[in-house]
Amino acid sequence: MSSTTPFAARLERVHEAMGLAHVDVVLLSLGADLPWLTGYTAMPLERLTMLVVPAPAAGQPTLLVPALEAPRVEPVPEVFSVRPWGEVEDPVAMVAALVRGCGTSSPVIAISDRAWSVFLLRLQAELPGASWRPASTVTAPLRAIKDRAEVESLAKAAAAADRVAAALLGGDISLVGRTERQVSGEITGRLLGEGNEKANFAIVASGPNSASPHHEPSGRTIQRGEPVVCDFGGSLGGYCSDITRTVFTGAPSRELAKIYGVVAEAQAAGVLSAQVGQLCSGVDRAARRVITGAGYGEFFVHRTGHGIGIEEHEDPYLVEGNSTPVTAGHVFSVEPGIYVPGRFGVRIEDIVAATPQGPRPLNLADHVLTVVEA
Amino acid sequence: MSSTTPFAARLERVHEAMGLAHVDVVLLSLGADLPWLTGYTAMPLERLTMLVVPAPAAGQPTLLVPALEAPRVEPVPEVFSVRPWGEVEDPVAMVAALVRGCGTSSPVIAISDRAWSVFLLRLQAELPGASWRPASTVTAPLRAIKDRAEVESLAKAAAAADRVAAALLGGDISLVGRTERQVSGEITGRLLGEGNEKANFAIVASGPNSASPHHEPSGRTIQRGEPVVCDFGGSLGGYCSDITRTVFTGAPSRELAKIYGVVAEAQAAGVLSAQVGQLCSGVDRAARRVITGAGYGEFFVHRTGHGIGIEEHEDPYLVEGNSTPVTAGHVFSVEPGIYVPGRFGVRIEDIVAATPQGPRPLNLADHVLTVVEA
Repeated sequence: MSSTTPFAARLERVHEAMGLAHVDVVLLSLGADLPWLTGYTAMPLERLTMLVVPAPAAGQPTLLVPALEAPRVEPVPEVFSVRPWGEVEDPVAMVAALVRGCGTSSPVIAISDRAWSVFLLRLQAELPGASWRPASTVTAPLRAIKDRAEVESLAKAAAAADRVAAALLGGDISLVGRTERQVSGEITGRLLGEGNEKANFAIVASGPNSASPHHEPSGRTIQRGEPVVCDFGGSLGGYCSDITRTVFTGAPSRELAKIYGVVAEAQAAGVLSAQVGQLCSGVDRAARRVITGAGYGEFFVHRTGHGIGIEEHEDPYLVEGNSTPVTAGHVFSVEPGIYVPGRFGVRIEDIVAATPQGPRPLNLADHVLTVVEA
Repeated sequence: MSSTTPFAARLERVHEAMGLAHVDVVLLSLGADLPWLTGYTAMPLERLTMLVVPAPAAGQPTLLVPALEAPRVEPVPEVFSVRPWGEVEDPVAMVAALVRGCGTSSPVIAISDRAWSVFLLRLQAELPGASWRPASTVTAPLRAIKDRAEVESLAKAAAAADRVAAALLGGDISLVGRTERQVSGEITGRLLGEGNEKANFAIVASGPNSASPHHEPSGRTIQRGEPVVCDFGGSLGGYCSDITRTVFTGAPSRELAKIYGVVAEAQAAGVLSAQVGQLCSGVDRAARRVITGAGYGEFFVHRTGHGIGIEEHEDPYLVEGNSTPVTAGHVFSVEPGIYVPGRFGVRIEDIVAATPQGPRPLNLADHVLTVVEA
């Protein structure tokens, strides 16, 4: 990292967006805005980490960081200076002093969406004249458009997830007779083995549990003749992956095979529709139409997808009501599903990048109905 | 789970504490308060999960949860009712309506410390008459005192971490020639293998990196003749573990061996001092005194410890200025360290429960200076 870092250019875009939004100070803590702008990720602990970004006329950003975490910071001197704070200092008072130093008595402050409320409440008490908004009002539209290097990072992360998916589809990850939690542990290990620095989640939902889209892997032992929804992802080079495949431990019933086909068709329709200029809600509708047309509309209980980047879920969301147009550089999941409560569920998910040449799926693992350990 | 859950009794204690603190409504989202009170953990995603707890006269608590996560909720009907919200509903407006239903136009609301700021800002806009404080003002003193079952859960989690530590000390985890990240991955896998449902972190800091207390495991290859600080923990049965051992890949220098002895002595002094009635700051001082006395005071850059429970870090903190007396049922880490920038660091950490009979270390893995792969 040196003059080739993207951070100075991003700071310029943030400054510009602050001007347009009439924001005087941006305060970044937990969440992806901070690593996107500085390369540094705050630890989700009770010791406050916060980057204070004033308007350009009021000086350079300052990163307040717990002294014992200061050695983790990779300096980017052209973007921010580092101010470590010791165990008996008050970091909230220090942030407030930096904000006051910006010269407005009633500043408009944008704070990280995921900053903890306990810090926001203390800052509000210290800065009674301020008005507050979420930092995403400044940063989300900037972060939603990935540059070429970011798309390649996401493609690399997707390829690592694909290799784990290939092991699942190829029967290298044994399922029958093991608990969901054991299989989840193996997927986690394989994600790390494929080069991810973090395994973020590994949902394994078998049999009736597959009807719960966000099922927590349990002690349930996987049986023969079941669907198993595996939804997993990690972070590689700071960028997230997220893929879902549903496999069967035995030939599925005619009904379940039909449902699998409907979901696969809906997924393909969603991807195909994701042309630049299409609305985000339009992609949701394109996938949903297939499922509704097949008579399963009431069982597709979630939106079709979410943006992905440094965060697992970020703008743009593919959901009814979101009239943001799909833009080159948007990268999002397309992941329709059908969930019949108490019986079973099926979901298929790939990450897709919007490009001027059309949608580019970053996940390439097979979609064909796969029976493992038949 | 049925009438034997601890949740109804905890709700009673919350109601009592709300009365004493003049709090009208408690709103619980991310963090440990929610699982402590309901058994349910919110997912850290952009879809809001929030438990609305009114004063007892204003009715039962309601858990607002994204519809697709509703199947994860284990009902506790005597404590809360569940209200799933669909993809096109507005959960913030729903929370605000429930708060308004409590009948005060200027309610005092306590919100989870770790609730995302984006939700707090939206709630503040919806409820302009409200005044806000962190939920920890109600819950932290309650949660800091663990009941017998909680202490046993923490002991079980500590024992699982001890087994991984024993593998490290016994030389079963090879170090030399592997990267910190690879060793961190193996520790993660072993934590899961020992029954943890989650591996929360696995710091591996070798050679000069050991001087950074919160070092991120890197691609650095571990060499012969180095200290390696391994600090790791998971969650088992919902309760956290956290242990640190420093091992040496070859006989340490006389200076480093001396420093190891000083840290071990400081750790023991901290534990011994943690008698009921001692101040939390007093435990910090007892450990610090040993290190300062040996001339390394400036290199012990963090507090001596933190409480632990459902969260890795929670009340009580063993830090200068905290005059909370150690109380039976407090469970905390005692983890002094010495960090010489650019050269090396040593830390030793155990979890300790305060009991009327004196401090009870929950970690029992060896403290003796251990050379592996000499």
